[in-house]
Amino acid sequence: MKLVLVRHGQSEWNLANKFTGWVDVDLSEKGIEEAKEAGRILKDLDIKFDKAYTSVLKRAIKTMHIILEECDQLWIDEEKTWRLNERHYGALQGLDKLETAKQYGEEKVHIWRRSYDTLPPALDDDSEMSQAHDRRYIKEVVPETENLKVTLERVMPFWTDKIAPDLIEGKNVLVVAHGNSLRALTKHLENISNEDIMSLEIATGKPIIYELDDMLNIIEKKVY
Amino acid sequence: MKLVLVRHGQSEWNLANKFTGWVDVDLSEKGIEEAKEAGRILKDLDIKFDKAYTSVLKRAIKTMHIILEECDQLWIDEEKTWRLNERHYGALQGLDKLETAKQYGEEKVHIWRRSYDTLPPALDDDSEMSQAHDRRYIKEVVPETENLKVTLERVMPFWTDKIAPDLIEGKNVLVVAHGNSLRALTKHLENISNEDIMSLEIATGKPIIYELDDMLNIIEKKVY
Repeated sequence: MKLVLVRHGQSEWNLANKFTGWVDVDLSEKGIEEAKEAGRILKDLDIKFDKAYTSVLKRAIKTMHIILEECDQLWIDEEKTWRLNERHYGALQGLDKLETAKQYGEEKVHIWRRSYDTLPPALDDDSEMSQAHDRRYIKEVVPETENLKVTLERVMPFWTDKIAPDLIEGKNVLVVAHGNSLRALTKHLENISNEDIMSLEIATGKPIIYELDDMLNIIEKKVY
Repeated sequence: MKLVLVRHGQSEWNLANKFTGWVDVDLSEKGIEEAKEAGRILKDLDIKFDKAYTSVLKRAIKTMHIILEECDQLWIDEEKTWRLNERHYGALQGLDKLETAKQYGEEKVHIWRRSYDTLPPALDDDSEMSQAHDRRYIKEVVPETENLKVTLERVMPFWTDKIAPDLIEGKNVLVVAHGNSLRALTKHLENISNEDIMSLEIATGKPIIYELDDMLNIIEKKVY
């Protein structure tokens, strides 16, 4: 069975160089093109999906729909979950990355971005960048901030309860998600250390295809 | 609670005047515009959906996605089912409506199109217009032909098991489907006779909004 991971195409805030996190920003024009290209690659590979998972953020949902349309598989069963959302960026959400580096120092911002277990400052529930009052979430699942460690901890129950059982049943699964929720999945799948995960980057719109055995060991990995 | 029914926007075969049924034809440009307009209407009405249902045919799925995107509610839970597919048109699938009228006589074709319980000729499983070998269906659910009566009989279990319970729980439900699967639902909801249903037409892309009480009696119906 195959597991295909795709990071959503470029978003408007990737383009504007802002911290995004759980803010529900749309795809840019380039992001739409990247999603179509990912779809064409998967169509050429003739992968027949049985299930598709994504986050509750439109940049990932739209990327998934564009991919499935290109593959002529819009009809497959899809499930959206906050557990696949991007890492919550705390009080950095909505801030310009360069401005933030000037204000807090490059070193500090680098640590917030890359460290496995350092938390950025918490976001206040009443901030307009907060999702605490968004009806798509029950309030208690909305973080005030996250690092990759915390992201991984909330991604894993979804892997264990939904994605892994599908794969074990022999299904081909498409997961369209975000830089950090996919880094979390990859860390688990490839057993990457807390140190090494810091340098792992996942490109937007480039399908990563794992061929797995029925113990979910990796037989082959290809990045397109 | 609100139940919103929308018939998908114009498809390429609506435009080409062909019988479509279960053939998975795409939306036309006009159909995409109709879907956007339906989305804008629902956005202006500020309806907050809890669940969306559609068929496994792309003209309905895409209409649903376009509507939800316009309403900024792409994240809501969606479920696709063959039970909401268009009526299967039997051996008429893929035929030009005018040609068919010439070949079989207008009277006969009118009966096939409008009669509640007359079946059009069956479609052979090996026809390229058949879905008997399409992996999205288990073979035993693919009809050889359907009239509105048979369509209603396969729509109803989905109504009873999924849509009605959601409404009774107080959810606002969006159903994006097809001319005849929606006529079937409407016949049940409004208790329309076998005679009267023959003249009921449902326009593409025009939301029909039912306000229901907790016994699913209609408090109000509005067509936009």
